[in-house]
Amino acid sequence: MIVILKENPDPQQLENLTRWLKSMNLGIHVSEGAHEKILGLIGDTTRVDIDLIRALDIVADVKRIQEPYKSANRKFHPLDTVIDVGHGVQIGGGHFQMIAGPCSIESPEQICGIAEAVKAAGATILRGGAFKPRTSPYAFQGMRADGIKLLLEASRATQMPVITEIMDLSQLDLFAEVDIIQVGARNMQNFDLLKALGQTDKPVLLKRGLANTLKELLMSAEYIMASGNEKVILCERGIRTYSDYLRNTLDLSAVPMLHELSHLPVVVDPSHATGMARIVPPMTLAAVACGCDGLEIEVHNEPTRALSDSAQQLRPAEFADLMRRVNTVREAISC
Amino acid sequence: MIVILKENPDPQQLENLTRWLKSMNLGIHVSEGAHEKILGLIGDTTRVDIDLIRALDIVADVKRIQEPYKSANRKFHPLDTVIDVGHGVQIGGGHFQMIAGPCSIESPEQICGIAEAVKAAGATILRGGAFKPRTSPYAFQGMRADGIKLLLEASRATQMPVITEIMDLSQLDLFAEVDIIQVGARNMQNFDLLKALGQTDKPVLLKRGLANTLKELLMSAEYIMASGNEKVILCERGIRTYSDYLRNTLDLSAVPMLHELSHLPVVVDPSHATGMARIVPPMTLAAVACGCDGLEIEVHNEPTRALSDSAQQLRPAEFADLMRRVNTVREAISC
Amino acid sequence: MIVILKENPDPQQLENLTRWLKSMNLGIHVSEGAHEKILGLIGDTTRVDIDLIRALDIVADVKRIQEPYKSANRKFHPLDTVIDVGHGVQIGGGHFQMIAGPCSIESPEQICGIAEAVKAAGATILRGGAFKPRTSPYAFQGMRADGIKLLLEASRATQMPVITEIMDLSQLDLFAEVDIIQVGARNMQNFDLLKALGQTDKPVLLKRGLANTLKELLMSAEYIMASGNEKVILCERGIRTYSDYLRNTLDLSAVPMLHELSHLPVVVDPSHATGMARIVPPMTLAAVACGCDGLEIEVHNEPTRALSDSAQQLRPAEFADLMRRVNTVREAISC
Amino acid sequence: MIVILKENPDPQQLENLTRWLKSMNLGIHVSEGAHEKILGLIGDTTRVDIDLIRALDIVADVKRIQEPYKSANRKFHPLDTVIDVGHGVQIGGGHFQMIAGPCSIESPEQICGIAEAVKAAGATILRGGAFKPRTSPYAFQGMRADGIKLLLEASRATQMPVITEIMDLSQLDLFAEVDIIQVGARNMQNFDLLKALGQTDKPVLLKRGLANTLKELLMSAEYIMASGNEKVILCERGIRTYSDYLRNTLDLSAVPMLHELSHLPVVVDPSHATGMARIVPPMTLAAVACGCDGLEIEVHNEPTRALSDSAQQLRPAEFADLMRRVNTVREAISC
Repeated sequence: MIVILKENPDPQQLENLTRWLKSMNLGIHVSEGAHEKILGLIGDTTRVDIDLIRALDIVADVKRIQEPYKSANRKFHPLDTVIDVGHGVQIGGGHFQMIAGPCSIESPEQICGIAEAVKAAGATILRGGAFKPRTSPYAFQGMRADGIKLLLEASRATQMPVITEIMDLSQLDLFAEVDIIQVGARNMQNFDLLKALGQTDKPVLLKRGLANTLKELLMSAEYIMASGNEKVILCERGIRTYSDYLRNTLDLSAVPMLHELSHLPVVVDPSHATGMARIVPPMTLAAVACGCDGLEIEVHNEPTRALSDSAQQLRPAEFADLMRRVNTVREAISC
Repeated sequence: MIVILKENPDPQQLENLTRWLKSMNLGIHVSEGAHEKILGLIGDTTRVDIDLIRALDIVADVKRIQEPYKSANRKFHPLDTVIDVGHGVQIGGGHFQMIAGPCSIESPEQICGIAEAVKAAGATILRGGAFKPRTSPYAFQGMRADGIKLLLEASRATQMPVITEIMDLSQLDLFAEVDIIQVGARNMQNFDLLKALGQTDKPVLLKRGLANTLKELLMSAEYIMASGNEKVILCERGIRTYSDYLRNTLDLSAVPMLHELSHLPVVVDPSHATGMARIVPPMTLAAVACGCDGLEIEVHNEPTRALSDSAQQLRPAEFADLMRRVNTVREAISC
Repeated sequence: MIVILKENPDPQQLENLTRWLKSMNLGIHVSEGAHEKILGLIGDTTRVDIDLIRALDIVADVKRIQEPYKSANRKFHPLDTVIDVGHGVQIGGGHFQMIAGPCSIESPEQICGIAEAVKAAGATILRGGAFKPRTSPYAFQGMRADGIKLLLEASRATQMPVITEIMDLSQLDLFAEVDIIQVGARNMQNFDLLKALGQTDKPVLLKRGLANTLKELLMSAEYIMASGNEKVILCERGIRTYSDYLRNTLDLSAVPMLHELSHLPVVVDPSHATGMARIVPPMTLAAVACGCDGLEIEVHNEPTRALSDSAQQLRPAEFADLMRRVNTVREAISC
Repeated sequence: MIVILKENPDPQQLENLTRWLKSMNLGIHVSEGAHEKILGLIGDTTRVDIDLIRALDIVADVKRIQEPYKSANRKFHPLDTVIDVGHGVQIGGGHFQMIAGPCSIESPEQICGIAEAVKAAGATILRGGAFKPRTSPYAFQGMRADGIKLLLEASRATQMPVITEIMDLSQLDLFAEVDIIQVGARNMQNFDLLKALGQTDKPVLLKRGLANTLKELLMSAEYIMASGNEKVILCERGIRTYSDYLRNTLDLSAVPMLHELSHLPVVVDPSHATGMARIVPPMTLAAVACGCDGLEIEVHNEPTRALSDSAQQLRPAEFADLMRRVNTVREAISC
């Protein structure tokens, strides 16, 4: 961390700052320029509150050199993390997995039918929404507890691990048999929820918020990891921009950047990012080509009768065709 | 709602769509152009899922004419809502209130001292953070339940109504004596929390999320109101943009726009929006000049020793001077 | 185009509006709802100024149904446009081309050496900057006219068509022998320049502005095409978002969307979008996987001595390896 | 400037870097930490290309401490710049001016009539567009040279200085008698135009681009000033965000920030920022309250017949009422 002092800092305040920094076991190197004096802080600055220093009267600016996250940081964990998500399925470190299923769980026939179809096509993890975050209070809010029961039935029938979204920590008990707990984009900074998930031993798929930086995503992963649970899967699902033609802007450069910054697996959700079924296949192939560890894709047997997000779900036959092309591109990039 | 059909729609599918729309008590007017056929839907379309229609094979696009919110909509409630927040204080409809206090509650002396200072300067509602949403798990997380106790003590000592932020619905019992419950920007779409607050009779100050539109803010207000609680105060606190010199971009045009779209009071938080104490006064005066119903401003007796957000808090003397200027500008705009 | 009237519109003003619309050869269909009256305009609305109608006292809102561009619109030109860029090279409609070369032209040895290297690796069009738009007036501004001469020498030596950027229409004479004229992101809405290029018969590569929508990009293409030159190549090169880790956010979903909206070829520039050489290869492969018609990639023999944008240029050996992988992915997606 | 080296940098490359930096008359202070070695550069780093250093293999990151602009920088010019714009009118340093007039010049009667009306209401500078940047090639493009003649007639008739926009440097001769030359948002980084304006002695009003930071705005001012013309007026006119209800987001915090960073006058254009006439008055008062040196407001005698941007223009009576309120708020903030 670099502290840039204003010209002619008050000596007493500078003495106070120096003593306080040393009390946190930080070494200090001083550089003096024509207009500025600069303090270079040496040691573990993860716990130093950058705003606290910036507010001092004698300080012009503070710049962080080290990343503020540790557990999620590749510098301290050079090898890829591989996460076991149950039923013998692993993700990360070369293990690629396809998550597929409907946006919302609607009936036993619907979820089991789709589960069989996506498994036949090559999907390895089943998704299905039971608790649904909807912008409007008048929209379908999901089957909730009943939805989770149906999802677990589909899991038993197909022997696939399942993933579903939690919306509030009061729902945690209902997720006892769920294999992967999903945290949605709107909850990426629901810190009480993250801490509670950090005390479980379940894999957590953490979606990037609509206006969150990669650093913030990794700090949210750090909340879970610092509480004891290291099984975090990162997910890029589109960010909000001024762009007007698709629901969100899929930020695929996040895939190689997250792989550089962190050792955690990175998954891409092209269905929510684009909100348009016919744009899902090209963005899926693009995500594979830039090295993601998996995808989460919405598939519905009758998209135009789906109770939520109908515009973005693929039909089973479309998904099967896409799955075939995913495998071809995966082979191509491994050459 | 306007449904634009593709060229030469399948007659059977069009018949199905028409029948389904009529089953929701909607009237249909058909306009036929050279290239398009357009259906105009007449009636209450609040509950119609726009994505469901957009996904149909015969539909090219759907455009909403009516806003999807009702309780928060000025069209159906032309008069300004005035909310009683306790201790004889009202906000909205010409009642202007200044909310002030520290970012975090730190000790009895700190919160009571600041409370007296801001009251003497003219503030009418006391703020103080007990539960603190922090990006880093290693940063100070607030005094939590103990903080609320200290805030209520300060309330009794100064006879001011108090506002503090809830982070999770499991904390709701602790807010029994709090006058106004604040929902932070990161929780604006925590729908389970919104529903739970809708079942209380407490005034709720709802902050706009960092990447949320005004429509989404009003839909979140609608969640609270549709659950039975109409005491919602809207708050603009800056949005995330590409801008690099301040923490967020304060969107003051939201003030007149929200007043046009809704009857609810609109408050501005320049402290979090800018994150820089010396920019707070000009933005406060600007917010007053464009007609806000109140402000929420952070004040700390020793900003440079504050345990959170130290860079953005005013000293009591700076706040008193600002308060004087706020009153002068309020008089000027009422001429 | 749909015109939504306010409640109880003044009959005389409505009569005036109706007469004016009919004078533009537009048919009008009226739908009447409980709260609104809606006019559906039938005919060619390309030349109707939407703001003019929106400003009328009796109008609540106006929504466009048809796109405001015609020449660039796939609806009116269903087949892909194929553009001949000289030296027997074609782009679009299945013809994929790799544009490569240095950010800036620096010396005869540099540009000829790189030209030979990229040609050997499989590039088919040579790029090189002569006029350089730089944020700082103190940064290297390019070799200007001399740079173009060197580029043309390299073209003759390697028999490759060349592309270079124009910054002002006063430079147009210097581009007489250049094969493709590039319009940079900052000039996407330099309308006088676009009109002047529309009066040439040169292929124009038009880069999307940093804050421009696809509709605006297509309207800028329309400026060139409406002036008589239909040889426009669209280029996605990253947009400005709040994202903090790379220079810009590459919006790859623009590739399939532009192919749907328009018949023009679509090229991707991952070098400027990311500004980081090690992120260029994964984003290149992703662009290929989602169907782009070509790429523009910066290659430099000694990136760390380059006079501009040194951080984003690949070394020739890195480019050759990438080119091999591009071909593998192209084969994979054509299966 | 701070250069952060990677761990274990190659000694020869470090030696090369050090020698090169010293050749630019920069002093170097070295700080060594547990994981990093940091070089602090002492001296004038304005001309150092930050990307050039960042690209070196031994460098992890570079951070700028000094701003890259000098002429526009308040640090080197502490006093406010006051610009004489002709006809005895000055702007900056306490001199507040109201610029008003139509979006487009349409006829002698129109421009002269509006000029008299806005002068009577208190405006001191007349605006009117002759060259119009329009998104669509099919929209009205302005009266061009004829428009400038009419504007100068209105100037002579009312004895007001006039401002109008230049779109291309080939038009410069037509601006010989114009008092202030406006550079539009889309041309903020048209560097050849900026350099040409730097060689005139005309005041230039430079609008911030839709996706440009304040640093970039000041770098564009620097282009003009470095070429010899120090009469630059900065203008905030709204930035592009995800916000969906107004054309752009007016970033008023830019006013106090620009005043802190620079000595140049700062003007606000609420008409283009909002695009909605009824939102112009509250945003005008807000701009005054946060300390702008002037405003540019569109006024039209018959807004609904205007040939461009009709939705955002005030009627003369509305402008007169606003002008009265502007004066009241100006008095209030000077107390």
